[in-house]
Amino acid sequence: MSSIIRQDLSTKDWTIFSEKRADRPYDYREKERKKVPKRYEPGCPFCIGNEEKTPRTLLVINGGGNWSVRVVKNKFPAVQSMEASCGGQQGRRHIDGPYLSIEGVGEHEVIIESPRHDDDLVKMDKSHVEKVMSAYKERFIDVSSQFQKQLVIIFKNHGRRAGASLDHPHSQLVAIPFVTEYIRNKMSESQRYFNDFGRCVYCDIIEHEIKSGKRLIYESDKFMALAPYASSVPYNIIIYPKRHMSCFAEAEDADISGLAGILQIVLGKLYGLLDDPDYNYVIDTSPMDQSGNRHYHWHLEIMPRLNTRAGFEIGSGMNINHILPETCAENLRNIKY
Amino acid sequence: MSSIIRQDLSTKDWTIFSEKRADRPYDYREKERKKVPKRYEPGCPFCIGNEEKTPRTLLVINGGGNWSVRVVKNKFPAVQSMEASCGGQQGRRHIDGPYLSIEGVGEHEVIIESPRHDDDLVKMDKSHVEKVMSAYKERFIDVSSQFQKQLVIIFKNHGRRAGASLDHPHSQLVAIPFVTEYIRNKMSESQRYFNDFGRCVYCDIIEHEIKSGKRLIYESDKFMALAPYASSVPYNIIIYPKRHMSCFAEAEDADISGLAGILQIVLGKLYGLLDDPDYNYVIDTSPMDQSGNRHYHWHLEIMPRLNTRAGFEIGSGMNINHILPETCAENLRNIKY
Repeated sequence: MSSIIRQDLSTKDWTIFSEKRADRPYDYREKERKKVPKRYEPGCPFCIGNEEKTPRTLLVINGGGNWSVRVVKNKFPAVQSMEASCGGQQGRRHIDGPYLSIEGVGEHEVIIESPRHDDDLVKMDKSHVEKVMSAYKERFIDVSSQFQKQLVIIFKNHGRRAGASLDHPHSQLVAIPFVTEYIRNKMSESQRYFNDFGRCVYCDIIEHEIKSGKRLIYESDKFMALAPYASSVPYNIIIYPKRHMSCFAEAEDADISGLAGILQIVLGKLYGLLDDPDYNYVIDTSPMDQSGNRHYHWHLEIMPRLNTRAGFEIGSGMNINHILPETCAENLRNIKY
Repeated sequence: MSSIIRQDLSTKDWTIFSEKRADRPYDYREKERKKVPKRYEPGCPFCIGNEEKTPRTLLVINGGGNWSVRVVKNKFPAVQSMEASCGGQQGRRHIDGPYLSIEGVGEHEVIIESPRHDDDLVKMDKSHVEKVMSAYKERFIDVSSQFQKQLVIIFKNHGRRAGASLDHPHSQLVAIPFVTEYIRNKMSESQRYFNDFGRCVYCDIIEHEIKSGKRLIYESDKFMALAPYASSVPYNIIIYPKRHMSCFAEAEDADISGLAGILQIVLGKLYGLLDDPDYNYVIDTSPMDQSGNRHYHWHLEIMPRLNTRAGFEIGSGMNINHILPETCAENLRNIKY
C-alpha cells in the first residue's frame, strides 16, 4: 500500500496511514515486564479494608456482602471542589499581564471498579461491569447538575503507557467549568454536518459502517463497535449506541447494561489479540445542559497505547498510523472472546 | 498552590496546573536503562561508512575530511514523493462512502546530524550545530518550493519515550499537501489577535516575557528562550527569534547561527538538570507561501517527555501539568551550561 491520508468525518482531523512504517528498524525492543498483581495489597488505597486511605466517599454500590464499586474524591486532584477553593464562587478569571487564567475549580473523582487489586473489567461478571457503568452514569448526572460544570470527562487509564499510576482497577471523572477548544471544534463540526445534511453525522457513520461491515468489530442489540475510518492509532475502537442519544445522561438502564456487555466483549478481544495492552478509554458526550440535541451522539472511545506520539504528531496535530482500520477490525472480529 | 488553569495566548488552549499531582503514589518507579552508545555501529544506516544503507542523498554538508551532516530520503516514509506515487499529480482526493481520503503524497526526509553514532547536539562544536540548522533551512526552502507542499514540519525525536526508533542522532522533515485543522486554528488565532491589537501576538509575548523575566530561561542577541505561560508539559520550552519573522525561510545566516547557539545552550541546561531526558522539538512556522506575513512568528518548541498524556488529555484536548513554568524557568536559569 502507498500511504493514504484519511479524514475523520466527525472532527475533520486527518490521519496518515503508512503500512511501510511498521517495517522500520527499532533500537528498543525489550518488552516491559508486567508484575503479576495480588488479590490484596496492604499499601493500596483502593483495596478493600483500606477505605480510610481515601478521601470522602461519594457513592458505594453493594453487590451483596461488602462493596462492589466505590466512588471517592481524588486525593491528588487536578482541580478543586468549589466549596474548598473559593467559597461557592466558581472559576474566577484573572488577568495576568497579557494572559488569562482561571482558578482550578472543578471535580476530580476516582471510580474504584472492584474491591480486588487483581481484578479487571474483562475478568469480572458482566453484572459487575454494569455496576461500574451505572456508577459512571450516576456520578456524571450528579456532577453535571452542579453549578456550571460545563465539561465532564469520564476516562480510564489502563497500564503504565496509558498514564496509570496505580495498578488497582479504577476510572476517573474530571469536571471543569468551561468547554475546551478541542471539544468546541468537535461539537461545531457535528452542528455543521447537521446543518448541511439534516442528520447526525454519527448516526450516518453507524448506518454506513453496519451496512459495509468492513470496519465493524462487534454489534449487539443496542450498540456497535467499529474501527474508525481515520483511526488515529492502531486498534482505535469506538463504541456507539445505535439509537441517537446526544448525552450520556440519556442512557437508560437497558443502555447501561448493553454498554457493559459490548465493552467487556471488545476489551476481551483486545486482550486476547494483543496480550493485555495498555489503553485509555474516554466517554465523549454532549454536556448535560445540551442534552437532547440532534447533532451530537455520545460514544466511548478506546485508544490502545501501542505506539508513541512523536514530533510530527505534536507539530502538525495529525497522526501517523501503520495499520488500516479494516485490518484491525478483521483481526478483532476473528478473535473469539 | 490550589490548581490554576491558564490559557495560551497564541492558541487559546488551556492547561491545568496542579502541583499536588506530583505527590501522588506511583506503582512504576523503575528507571529505564540507557545503553551507552558506541562511536560506530556496524548495523546503523546513519553511521559513516554505511551510506549505501540509506536511500537517495539530498544534501551533504562537508566539514573538512568526510561529511558532517547528510540529508537522505526516509527509507520508511509516512508519505511518498510525488513522482513515484502518481505521475506528477499531487494528492488526488477520493470519495469513499461518506468519507474523504487523499493519496499520501509528500516528502519524508532524514537529517543525519553527525557521522558519529554517539554524538549529540549538546556535545558537538557549536559550528556543527550550525550546519544542522543550515541543513534544516536549506531543505525547508527546497521542499516548500515544490508544488503545493502546504505544510512542512521539521522535528526531532530524542529517546524512546519521544518516539525515536534509532539512536543515531537525527531529525526529520515531513511535508504534506494541506494544512491541518490544528495549524489552521493556530494561524487563525494569531490573525485574530493581529486584527484586534494590530500587533503580532508572539512579538507581544516576547516583549512581555523579557520585561517580566519570570519565565525567561535564556536570552541572546537575536533569540530568547522561555517557559510558556500555559506550558502543556513540565519543562516545555519555546525559542523565539526576537525580530519578527513569520517563516523559517526568512532566517538569515546570523539567525541560523544564533539559533544553533541558543538551542545548544538550552538543551545543555535540560540535560544538566534532568539527566538527558527524552524530548521532541518542532519548528513551528508559517508556510513559505505566506512568508512575510505580520501575524505569525516562527519558533522552535521543545517538549520533554517526562509524563504521559492520559485519558483526560485525550478526551478533553487539554493538559494537566504539575510544575509551573516559573519554577521550570528558575531551575533552568540556575543550571550552568
